[in-house]
Amino acid sequence: MNVSKLREKVRNIPDFPVKGIQFKDVTTLFKDSATLKELSDGLFKMYQNKGITKVVGIESRGFIMGPLLADRLHAGFVPIRKPGKLPAPTFEATYDKEYGTDTIQIHRDALDEQDVVLLHDDLLATGGTMVAAVDLIRKFNPRKIYVNFLIELEDLKGRKLFDPDIEIESIIKYNI
Amino acid sequence: MNVSKLREKVRNIPDFPVKGIQFKDVTTLFKDSATLKELSDGLFKMYQNKGITKVVGIESRGFIMGPLLADRLHAGFVPIRKPGKLPAPTFEATYDKEYGTDTIQIHRDALDEQDVVLLHDDLLATGGTMVAAVDLIRKFNPRKIYVNFLIELEDLKGRKLFDPDIEIESIIKYNI
Repeated sequence: MNVSKLREKVRNIPDFPVKGIQFKDVTTLFKDSATLKELSDGLFKMYQNKGITKVVGIESRGFIMGPLLADRLHAGFVPIRKPGKLPAPTFEATYDKEYGTDTIQIHRDALDEQDVVLLHDDLLATGGTMVAAVDLIRKFNPRKIYVNFLIELEDLKGRKLFDPDIEIESIIKYNI
Repeated sequence: MNVSKLREKVRNIPDFPVKGIQFKDVTTLFKDSATLKELSDGLFKMYQNKGITKVVGIESRGFIMGPLLADRLHAGFVPIRKPGKLPAPTFEATYDKEYGTDTIQIHRDALDEQDVVLLHDDLLATGGTMVAAVDLIRKFNPRKIYVNFLIELEDLKGRKLFDPDIEIESIIKYNI
């Protein structure tokens, strides 16, 4: 995978959503067909020999590459969503944010203990959402949990929050 | 495409999100790897000879099959999102809902007049969101606009709202 080519395609947006944040816009990765293919092929190669049976994506930006990767790996796709969106019975996890808390949900019948799970989201920043997502996945007691991000903001040290049994990979790393 | 097999996999949820609605849960289509592959192959065959250059998906459920289809068609993927989510300058469209209005946005540099666009969402019900999405796409004056849904609730006659130059296809049709 040509990571420097992918990195060039990420658009930096200063002061979004608030002043002082250098927002990494991934829409410019997806818009260009050759870049989308590079990313798709690269992700496929990273996980093709892991025996992944389900890819789980976190709403909304984790829905973009998650199902694509599920399809290429011949796995199923499972969404983690905000409250009130999933129509059948759910498990939920609540986690702290900078101001207040957030809650995410997964269908109770989405996974089972035979699954090898790849959890995907676009960005690893402080890691709060993904740690809560791993907690949700553990309720199913799957055989293995992999975690993948398109982008990792290494200075925020989100990676340190995860237990050592979780294999974490990111593609484009930033040190601000 | 084995539509009756796909139809069997859609889960009906009575009284969601409100009493009287028979909600069509598509998560059960995506969860099963063989069903996801059937859907992916079927969508690919529908659009492989149309010269599609960009697939546009509507947040959030249109993000699930949209990018997958873009990847298979060697096209790019462009998101339409709710206000405040897209970080660069946008066009926006506001449309009426049962109670109040809703607004959707697209990046101003997402498409151009050379594009052949496939607009995708999971469900055609009354059609308000997709009609607004077509209005957004027309601002770019692309060569052609195709519209695709996984599910169409035919009794709601959403299809009638679209101009005749728009080619609309849906996979699983319901007459309640």
